[in-house]
Amino acid sequence: MTSVRCGAGPLSFIVFSEQEGHRIGWGACTDSHGEYHSWGRTVEGIYILGDMTTKKIIDVIDRGPIPMPKGDIDFEESEAAALPGTTPLVVTQPIGPSYKLNKGEVSWQNWRFRFRLDPRVGPVVGLVRYQDGDKLRSIMYEGSLSEMYVPYMDPDESWNSRAFLDAGEFLLGGLIKPVGPDDCPQRAQYFTAFAPTDKGVPIMKTQAACLFERTSDNPAWRHLENNLISGRPSRALVLRTAAVVGNYDYMMDWIFQQDGTIRVAVGATGIVETKSVKEEKVEHHMEDGKPSYGTLVSPNLVAVNHDHFFSYRLDMDVDGTQNSFMIDKLVPQQISARTRKSIWAVESSIAKNEKDAILDIDLRKPGMWHFINPSVHGAVGHPTSYEIMPGMTAISNIAPDDPAQKVGAFSEHQMWVTPYKPDELYAAGTYVTNSKGLEGLPAWTKANRPIENTDIVGWYTVGFHHVVRAEDWPVMPTMWHDFLIRPVNFFDKNPVLTLPHQP
Amino acid sequence: MTSVRCGAGPLSFIVFSEQEGHRIGWGACTDSHGEYHSWGRTVEGIYILGDMTTKKIIDVIDRGPIPMPKGDIDFEESEAAALPGTTPLVVTQPIGPSYKLNKGEVSWQNWRFRFRLDPRVGPVVGLVRYQDGDKLRSIMYEGSLSEMYVPYMDPDESWNSRAFLDAGEFLLGGLIKPVGPDDCPQRAQYFTAFAPTDKGVPIMKTQAACLFERTSDNPAWRHLENNLISGRPSRALVLRTAAVVGNYDYMMDWIFQQDGTIRVAVGATGIVETKSVKEEKVEHHMEDGKPSYGTLVSPNLVAVNHDHFFSYRLDMDVDGTQNSFMIDKLVPQQISARTRKSIWAVESSIAKNEKDAILDIDLRKPGMWHFINPSVHGAVGHPTSYEIMPGMTAISNIAPDDPAQKVGAFSEHQMWVTPYKPDELYAAGTYVTNSKGLEGLPAWTKANRPIENTDIVGWYTVGFHHVVRAEDWPVMPTMWHDFLIRPVNFFDKNPVLTLPHQP
Repeated sequence: MTSVRCGAGPLSFIVFSEQEGHRIGWGACTDSHGEYHSWGRTVEGIYILGDMTTKKIIDVIDRGPIPMPKGDIDFEESEAAALPGTTPLVVTQPIGPSYKLNKGEVSWQNWRFRFRLDPRVGPVVGLVRYQDGDKLRSIMYEGSLSEMYVPYMDPDESWNSRAFLDAGEFLLGGLIKPVGPDDCPQRAQYFTAFAPTDKGVPIMKTQAACLFERTSDNPAWRHLENNLISGRPSRALVLRTAAVVGNYDYMMDWIFQQDGTIRVAVGATGIVETKSVKEEKVEHHMEDGKPSYGTLVSPNLVAVNHDHFFSYRLDMDVDGTQNSFMIDKLVPQQISARTRKSIWAVESSIAKNEKDAILDIDLRKPGMWHFINPSVHGAVGHPTSYEIMPGMTAISNIAPDDPAQKVGAFSEHQMWVTPYKPDELYAAGTYVTNSKGLEGLPAWTKANRPIENTDIVGWYTVGFHHVVRAEDWPVMPTMWHDFLIRPVNFFDKNPVLTLPHQP
Repeated sequence: MTSVRCGAGPLSFIVFSEQEGHRIGWGACTDSHGEYHSWGRTVEGIYILGDMTTKKIIDVIDRGPIPMPKGDIDFEESEAAALPGTTPLVVTQPIGPSYKLNKGEVSWQNWRFRFRLDPRVGPVVGLVRYQDGDKLRSIMYEGSLSEMYVPYMDPDESWNSRAFLDAGEFLLGGLIKPVGPDDCPQRAQYFTAFAPTDKGVPIMKTQAACLFERTSDNPAWRHLENNLISGRPSRALVLRTAAVVGNYDYMMDWIFQQDGTIRVAVGATGIVETKSVKEEKVEHHMEDGKPSYGTLVSPNLVAVNHDHFFSYRLDMDVDGTQNSFMIDKLVPQQISARTRKSIWAVESSIAKNEKDAILDIDLRKPGMWHFINPSVHGAVGHPTSYEIMPGMTAISNIAPDDPAQKVGAFSEHQMWVTPYKPDELYAAGTYVTNSKGLEGLPAWTKANRPIENTDIVGWYTVGFHHVVRAEDWPVMPTMWHDFLIRPVNFFDKNPVLTLPHQP
């Protein structure tokens, strides 16, 4: 029994409200005998119900025995040898990076921005501006993750309560964890962060972020005319951190492209959450239609289905603080022509109030979402603007009256826009532990406040449903999702025309 | 008048059926006086209606005068100077690439594949296999672009007929055009292709593709446990070609990742199609709700709204030719638990016939699309499989009875699956010029042929709606879209566990 650990060890106590004023949660046990970690080694069937307010065990439930999975969970000692024939691929910056740091400001090509490393939400990028000729133009006041929501999909008791609000729930020590030489290229620069302990004492966290330039190996633009290829290679600046919440690791990137676009990317890796089961082989084939709550990734080990939602708070300041949110709809029109009966046209409208700007992605009803400055116009008269351009993402399909979903309700829509309020920083509210879902975006936007021509904040959610593959075990290949913050009529023409031919 | 060109110069004759047995189309004129290309210099208002069968001009229509745009269209002579402070970023492979070429087979890490360069559809990747321990396992027999569809959205006569089937319509000379040193990194290897002239004589096309390895600068996987970061950096192999159809350029990439995933990517760049107009400034602001058919990108010059759809033909052979297509639906379920009322579960089904496999992406009805081998099972019993994992894409919202849309009807759904037929290679049929839309995916699948446990072909469409930005002029910054061909329970565990620490 010496290697068995129970409680708030590898499995967090999951908090739910049973009695007012108490925090009640489940605990579980693991046996990591002979292993340096205990993921994939849960002693399933034994569950502990605890009251964290009174610090008493309420109940111990034994539904076992369920066999202990014995498959290999080791990845650190994996061979780590290059395949035969692999040749070196060397990236160097012999005279150092092109970016400069000056009193906390990063200056790279035409970009200017600051960043701080917040224990709750990771990197907060601020005062993001672009040098456009002799004008230093504002794009975003502040941008960061605001919350994460990871609900699991197993109906069993002690499992169904697992729905994590990872940013708000795991404040102490913080979401942000070190990055190292396998995460960032050799030429990267590392940054130190400070976080408070539970006594409020600051502790220093080294290697909390890295910053590096990279060649994209892709052309910024190109065109072939009369057998002459014109084009320019591109590079980018990457600010990278890692969020680690127990088993899961997320690479969190802010990527600044030369063309004025910011790519925000999340790479999910680390260890998927598993449950020990009696089956050594799949009992039924997936294709028989029987509902499945997880994937057998190894004998006696099921990786449970779940979702990941990342809400980003984007306090846009396009050419100043007074912005509006414009929705472009691509609306089909009938026409009468010899060769054509149908086209689409763009219909634009300005969101007057918050409820006008609660939006979903629907491929059958395409649209675009712009933060415009109604008072600043480009050379031919367009209001200057930046759009939020989604990448592949997901919307929660859990019922809205589900207690977990009430807290993670920001995941029901892709886009929200609110007026700037200094205390509205987190999509599920400031205090998410034991929350009844009365805080956050759905609560704030009930007031349907005006959002036209004022200081506004966009909230965009990157999400994905995760049905685990055998390939995701014992550690998951990084799966990336991203979205773009992209200039639209912000510049009067292509801002990367004059790039050099050398990357 | 010496610099004015009319006819099938910069603007193609657009073919539509007016009289049986004739090819009737519009022509137009440009004036590229003092410029080395004529994009953005159309003499709008003058249109020519021609009969290409009898080689006679039917009509010349003058609705002008419309002023000639005078904005700068030059990008080749743009300064091309590095911004001050830009330092070299050097990528080298001092002892050469890691891939090998042997009798037409590319061998890189665990990947084995062939490719040929087809004038109509570009690179055709074939016999794609993965060395998994001592087994060389089949993944895909053949994969390539099958068709492109680019309908424009301007209601005016001579414009509304512009709806290009770029692969099938521009056979001569071919879609595939050279790539050069600003498209591919210095270390890339170039390949020559052959294409027929209109007399059937083969001509050699140099630099038709490039192949290179790149570091992704991203970890293949990572995990932090007890303050120890485990992880492995990753690299990838890129096969790149460029498709150029008059004004537009597309980078067409097949990217082989170490983890068994193929990323298929399309980068749209080049010159957007424009129309000369009377307005020097936007007459109305976009946000007033008046429908708009294009964007004023420069005085007197509107870039017209349009769509891009790329149909990929993916003849999957997962562990052999006999495959089935499995659809996983993530279906909400009600549960009764103290902390939870709702979860989702996976319901899988096998598509018996073609109509079961005509599928759309709907974020409110999430699902996954797998090519499985029902006879081959992994270590814990799953059928081996590869999934098509969409990136952000678009579905055509033009009415199905529109004559252009009838030909490009493959764009109405994201996914189609057909039984293998050697003459079914192109999503809109073999002969698309003057087509009435009676060929291609919608026609073939009417027979609703069986697709279970047989040799099947998947057809996936990458698409995007394009409302042009001022930033897209005079040449468009590359906009990427992609999708993944990704192993799901094909490997028994993470196939990149044993990568080396050096990228």
